Amino acid sequence: MEIERKFLVNNYPLLETYPCKNIKQAYLSTDPVIRIREMGELYFLTVKSQGHMVREEFEMPITKEQFESLYTKVDTSPIEKTRYFIPLDNHLTAELDIYKGHLEGLCTVEVEFTSVASADSFKAPQWFGKDITLDNRYKNNNLATYGIPIEE
Amino acid sequence: MEIERKFLVNNYPLLETYPCKNIKQAYLSTDPVIRIREMGELYFLTVKSQGHMVREEFEMPITKEQFESLYTKVDTSPIEKTRYFIPLDNHLTAELDIYKGHLEGLCTVEVEFTSVASADSFKAPQWFGKDITLDNRYKNNNLATYGIPIEE
Repeated sequence: MEIERKFLVNNYPLLETYPCKNIKQAYLSTDPVIRIREMGELYFLTVKSQGHMVREEFEMPITKEQFESLYTKVDTSPIEKTRYFIPLDNHLTAELDIYKGHLEGLCTVEVEFTSVASADSFKAPQWFGKDITLDNRYKNNNLATYGIPIEE
Repeated sequence: MEIERKFLVNNYPLLETYPCKNIKQAYLSTDPVIRIREMGELYFLTVKSQGHMVREEFEMPITKEQFESLYTKVDTSPIEKTRYFIPLDNHLTAELDIYKGHLEGLCTVEVEFTSVASADSFKAPQWFGKDITLDNRYKNNNLATYGIPIEE
């Protein structure tokens, strides 16, 4: 079970001091979500059920060779982003994603919770922007297919 | 976690009295295993890790529409079989698969266990044949790709 909230970003803190990873991911299918991801030197296959804040998710490590073989079957342009891990209060971590390539200019932040109650009561820091947890357009499978959403 | 053993079949019991389901399945990928399955009127997406008797497995219900959309992406011929559920001692169930189509003539039986200890101590009934738990050739992803193995 994955419980998380997702936000746009008003202005992020100085990033130099935070750990980060380069992520490249693509989708064998966007409905249901079947995703492959390269993160640093690790490779994963992930399957996700429908849903917004709460989703079933299964992630399995795969080899570089399996990743490359699955990569020949993807449906969409890959998503490339740098993810920064920024500590918040209450032992939470903000995962700040700065997108590259065809999504250059987009920046989102996610926080993962251990319960729906803690997700509901979360007070976002100042630098967080609009809450997009329920906005399907910002799901990475849709970003891969449709690009950056237009905000009014 | 899935713990199971798989056998060939010497001669199976009279099947008329046992519940059964028609299964059709195909693979988006055989390594790692990404499988779609139609069973009766239910549809599933399943991802499996490497392994023989013990494997990580995640199964997720999907809709008929999702099944049909994923079916356009499969890598292999579909596997079609009728699965009979035959009760054994100790609350175990034999899942007897009688294959059709390009695997016509093949018949295997699987038993799922709740622990490695019970899998190890399992005494197969007379009608079970050769233990093929460790034989990769009988994994359904390989059957889909290579057909029925030749036994010496």
